[in-house]
Amino acid sequence: MENDKLHAMRHTAAHVLAAAAQRLYPGIKLGVGPVVENGFFYDILFAAPITEEDLEKLEVEMRKIVAEGHDMVREEISIDEAIKKFEEMGQDFKVELLRDLKEKGTTKVNPEEAQDIDVAHPDVASLYQTGEFVDLCRGPHVGNVKDVGAFKLWKLAGAYWRGKEENPQMQRIYGLAFETQQELDQYLTMLEEAKKRDHRKLGKELELFTIIDDIGSGLPLFYPKGAILRRMVESFISNLQEPRGYTPIWIPHITKGTLYERSGHLQKYDAMYPPMHLEGEADYYLKPMNCPHFMMLYASMPHSYREMPMRWVCTTTNYRYEKSGELSGLTRVRSLTQDDCHVFARPDQIEGEINLMLDMIELTYKAFGFNDFWVRISVSDPENPDKYIGDKQVWIDSEVSLKSLIETRGWTHEVGVGEAAFYGPKLDFMFKDAIGREWQLSTIQLDMNLPERFELEYVDSDGSKKRPVVIHRAILGSTERFLGILIEHYAGAFPFWIAPVQLRLATVSDEFVPFAKLAQEKLAQADIRVDLDDSNEKVGKKIRNSATHKIPWTIVIGQKEVDGGDFKVNVFGQEEDLVIPATELVDRAKQASQFPQ
Amino acid sequence: MENDKLHAMRHTAAHVLAAAAQRLYPGIKLGVGPVVENGFFYDILFAAPITEEDLEKLEVEMRKIVAEGHDMVREEISIDEAIKKFEEMGQDFKVELLRDLKEKGTTKVNPEEAQDIDVAHPDVASLYQTGEFVDLCRGPHVGNVKDVGAFKLWKLAGAYWRGKEENPQMQRIYGLAFETQQELDQYLTMLEEAKKRDHRKLGKELELFTIIDDIGSGLPLFYPKGAILRRMVESFISNLQEPRGYTPIWIPHITKGTLYERSGHLQKYDAMYPPMHLEGEADYYLKPMNCPHFMMLYASMPHSYREMPMRWVCTTTNYRYEKSGELSGLTRVRSLTQDDCHVFARPDQIEGEINLMLDMIELTYKAFGFNDFWVRISVSDPENPDKYIGDKQVWIDSEVSLKSLIETRGWTHEVGVGEAAFYGPKLDFMFKDAIGREWQLSTIQLDMNLPERFELEYVDSDGSKKRPVVIHRAILGSTERFLGILIEHYAGAFPFWIAPVQLRLATVSDEFVPFAKLAQEKLAQADIRVDLDDSNEKVGKKIRNSATHKIPWTIVIGQKEVDGGDFKVNVFGQEEDLVIPATELVDRAKQASQFPQ
Repeated sequence: MENDKLHAMRHTAAHVLAAAAQRLYPGIKLGVGPVVENGFFYDILFAAPITEEDLEKLEVEMRKIVAEGHDMVREEISIDEAIKKFEEMGQDFKVELLRDLKEKGTTKVNPEEAQDIDVAHPDVASLYQTGEFVDLCRGPHVGNVKDVGAFKLWKLAGAYWRGKEENPQMQRIYGLAFETQQELDQYLTMLEEAKKRDHRKLGKELELFTIIDDIGSGLPLFYPKGAILRRMVESFISNLQEPRGYTPIWIPHITKGTLYERSGHLQKYDAMYPPMHLEGEADYYLKPMNCPHFMMLYASMPHSYREMPMRWVCTTTNYRYEKSGELSGLTRVRSLTQDDCHVFARPDQIEGEINLMLDMIELTYKAFGFNDFWVRISVSDPENPDKYIGDKQVWIDSEVSLKSLIETRGWTHEVGVGEAAFYGPKLDFMFKDAIGREWQLSTIQLDMNLPERFELEYVDSDGSKKRPVVIHRAILGSTERFLGILIEHYAGAFPFWIAPVQLRLATVSDEFVPFAKLAQEKLAQADIRVDLDDSNEKVGKKIRNSATHKIPWTIVIGQKEVDGGDFKVNVFGQEEDLVIPATELVDRAKQASQFPQ
Repeated sequence: MENDKLHAMRHTAAHVLAAAAQRLYPGIKLGVGPVVENGFFYDILFAAPITEEDLEKLEVEMRKIVAEGHDMVREEISIDEAIKKFEEMGQDFKVELLRDLKEKGTTKVNPEEAQDIDVAHPDVASLYQTGEFVDLCRGPHVGNVKDVGAFKLWKLAGAYWRGKEENPQMQRIYGLAFETQQELDQYLTMLEEAKKRDHRKLGKELELFTIIDDIGSGLPLFYPKGAILRRMVESFISNLQEPRGYTPIWIPHITKGTLYERSGHLQKYDAMYPPMHLEGEADYYLKPMNCPHFMMLYASMPHSYREMPMRWVCTTTNYRYEKSGELSGLTRVRSLTQDDCHVFARPDQIEGEINLMLDMIELTYKAFGFNDFWVRISVSDPENPDKYIGDKQVWIDSEVSLKSLIETRGWTHEVGVGEAAFYGPKLDFMFKDAIGREWQLSTIQLDMNLPERFELEYVDSDGSKKRPVVIHRAILGSTERFLGILIEHYAGAFPFWIAPVQLRLATVSDEFVPFAKLAQEKLAQADIRVDLDDSNEKVGKKIRNSATHKIPWTIVIGQKEVDGGDFKVNVFGQEEDLVIPATELVDRAKQASQFPQ
């Protein structure tokens, strides 16, 4: 979904930024300046660090350069010449990249990086000239800086040269860039809105969760209201799953290291917490994922083809030691509670199982109001059949199934050829929230590796032993991240069915407290999450307080209500009151509490 | 509740055992031989280890000694004389004890031991003579071995001298001993029954849980049926708690060590898993209990007297590194999921809060059929007022409350003077299961220490800051242990409301499968846990299979049922069928599913 023109504009904007910086801060050393989502950045080493305030000056200078109307002039020279040229300019980082390119044929620090740092061709180095400024760059760019589009410098961050802590720390200047000013403005409005909705801010204001230094970063604790939210989303999922034949299991949060040796995680997975070393017994690990535990439980008893598919689920917390710089509120945590599911299936059951999962994913996101989504289908690379393990026919059949299931539903999708893991094809679901941000949430992943490693078997109808296929699936991803997204999606104004406090009763004065308490009790007995404001504040203040806490329904209790009059429900975010006859209040509240289907 | 006469009989039996062992295995070295629950043991170092088969020989010899009718002759000599005497006999262990007694005035290995090893007075050593056998012993004994009562040697175990691994390993011979043969027989019957009910055996047969070497001892994993049991007992508790104003919170399973430094656990608590050491960041620990997390969450926001009491609950798993020798199925585990609750209360609310807890404990155990219980009230020692922290008046008031609350309910109880922890008085509940074994389950503990350590506060009505009292409470203790006990209590035949599979439909032949499937669907929609046996077995076999799995209701589906006849329900453990009109089946099953109140 990349737009070549926009990419060139953003890349040009990065050069303009570097040119502006060089004018204002001669002697700076430039790192790399790639295009990123919504814009670009440039890593620069300043003699003295700049501050957020300096971004404005830089932006003014950028606009000056754009107004000057320079062409973006491309030149190709040999790598050796380029090295000489950048040495003369004192651009050590560029020289380092060129040397790497010359010696290793790549600028990648490690082979897993997605692509070369965007600087050069393998043999010749291409340069781009913007007025007096010259930069090493693969291109392409727009023809003239005037066509750079709309941009804005946005924020400043620290970044180690090539992402390594032992290297110098540079400053990363982020810019937003879009084709038109209108699009940029829209994006800025969205950012503004996102700031207001920041779940870390709302989490505090609405008393949902907290993070405590002495306990640890990335390890949120949930207050009662946040714990209710957790339960609501988790119950929503179990209410979908269980009538469809998914059965919970239970596994401990730790294991001996031998389990991860067998699964291969110990060698490959780098976000594990270090071991708890027990002299003379074993190293125990906190689990970072559940698959190996599921596999062992399956393997601990014999299975027949008649039992398949076995749909096992467990909502359980995993621990991953993410770098502290990457942590953020609930959306990047170290404790993540997954609505994890592993289906053990016969090959002929894969299509049906995936279809069942698609139903549930659709129902879930519709219920939470995420109506805009698309699917990425990651399939194998037909040019490299040897990269993949497992039965070839299972690969072919399941990839055909995945595609046709998504097409039949008419869902927007993209097929990533060669993007399947070596052990199976995959579906990823990207959802847009209320302010247009995209989040990768649900995943369905076929796995032909773990059944092999754990020697999983079932006895087929002919008495022979067969290997099942495992399908991993998460609908929410993790409770924590989903809640972080949900808080921002709803801007903290949760719909009635999920709200921690659904209904607030507010008394006009003390004489109405006994009546209000009776009403509260009735509602509570019907499982409505109700509270009572019987303080001495004025009614107007009480209603505003309720709105501050974004409580869906507020009902003022005064003489009229005591006399049996209709209840006037002040609905959060709605101008007009909802009028409910006294005898119907409990039923209407119960109706509104139903999980959406 | 100690019975002096029985104690003397059991103690005498231990001497008789030692005397018999010395006759059969001259040269053995004797350790200690105290009275324990239901009998006694003696630790002995044999030249070559004996086996279970040898116990019979020993028992025959014991009966011979009893028949000889020796008096139990007491003699008192000085400690030095005693040392000399036992040196001459080559009884090194006895000599070691006497030396300790002489030098330290005690035979305790560490000061926390409940009492001196039962051998001697501080100044003089008392000896007991049984025929040719003489032993160091405080007494008392019965006058003549003939009055020793009914006994039986029972089992053999290993035991290090004085419980220390670096000491020689001895053999511990356990004996059962009661006043009468009838009591002994009853106890043996109970043991036999307990063996049949062993939850480790039933856990496997009924596919409830498993323990897997590669994951770790004491870390059970639960199959779907076991996971349902977990949920049922945990839901039972939340269904009691939540209408009573208890609100769930959520906490992570790990924390930085700083938290346990503050709480004092790091210094004092020895069952913690070792730290996960993160260079340059912190040592993280798996939580062995939840209190410090609760305290931190409370302390993370200001509180007013109006909010109190705050009743916070969390069902969460703790990890304790129990010695592997002490682990047993679900009853002694390393992963224990607590139905943990901390109430933060004003001092004037303590009585009301405890009373609420007593209600719930009573309801819970009644529901699970534990009708026989008693309460231990642990209060402070009036002679040592300085041992205790916290407000004196709070101590006095709460101890009075505890006693009067239990007395008012007419519950059997015992007051343990001086048995309170330094931070608060406590209630422990001992329940008898279906075969008469006693289990300590619920606990209520006042705590004036943690609020102090964590500087917990609330703003009182006069604006001043006050310290709340914390009340810890667990009803089940831990889900795992409670389930272990429950499986044995019910012998795996769970009542309908808690059974993993409540109802089985068994078809007479294939032609009735469609009808059975419809019935199954209807029942499942009403949340009845139903399965279907549509295999080709004979009906009789199907009914027996269902009984093997101890499924509460089994319904055979044949022509009569298809024609609309009544359902004949084969009820597990009942002779007579339950007859239910076809139209009422779902409702009756739903009724039977209700949690008992």
